[in-house]
Amino acid sequence: MAYDVYDSECPARAVLDHVGDKWALLVLNRLGEGPVRFNALRRDINGLSQKVLSQVLKRLERDGLITRTVFPTVPVTVEYALTRMGECLNANVGPLLHWAESNMDQIRAAQSAYDERLSEAA
Amino acid sequence: MAYDVYDSECPARAVLDHVGDKWALLVLNRLGEGPVRFNALRRDINGLSQKVLSQVLKRLERDGLITRTVFPTVPVTVEYALTRMGECLNANVGPLLHWAESNMDQIRAAQSAYDERLSEAA
Repeated sequence: MAYDVYDSECPARAVLDHVGDKWALLVLNRLGEGPVRFNALRRDINGLSQKVLSQVLKRLERDGLITRTVFPTVPVTVEYALTRMGECLNANVGPLLHWAESNMDQIRAAQSAYDERLSEAA
Repeated sequence: MAYDVYDSECPARAVLDHVGDKWALLVLNRLGEGPVRFNALRRDINGLSQKVLSQVLKRLERDGLITRTVFPTVPVTVEYALTRMGECLNANVGPLLHWAESNMDQIRAAQSAYDERLSEAA
């Protein structure tokens, strides 16, 4: 079956909903460095709440992009890791994050210029 | 200045909010084929409302990723095109969309397996 993201009925749209999400991109990219525990993810991704992180991880696990392993320690340790498919996706996510970081100066300049044009027109 | 998307204070986070958005990814990718009019964008990207399309285009224009050109026809024609920076970003977006399309079968299988495990556990 051929999938077309421009078609609203296409199931690939739902995947875009998951991966076209700032937090999911950051989580995937963080896991690209190796398996990480829940608490470490929370600590490393600044501003991400426990609740939202849980939701993001559940969606990614359901999509088959990450695995969740529970270790019977006290307290229980939960570790997340990319699946092979998650690794493939992440290979496309890294460049996007890197792009955002390395083009910020230019984007901020564009935003200032846009806002100035708007205020002049007002 | 170095930007770090893992830092919640980093302005690159705001850009991720814009590009980590399903509709923005689809609009950028559609403009990658060449300049497009508003109505054509709306028609081509199935399920995208006029209001949301307007918002997405404004954000992308403010970020300096697309240009908006008004032609004095009757009625007025408005055409959108990628800037050079938008083209660079889109070079990273295309692979992500293509990935979502080409991995859908595997993702759907993972989702079914996950849902079955959940219902067995319930």
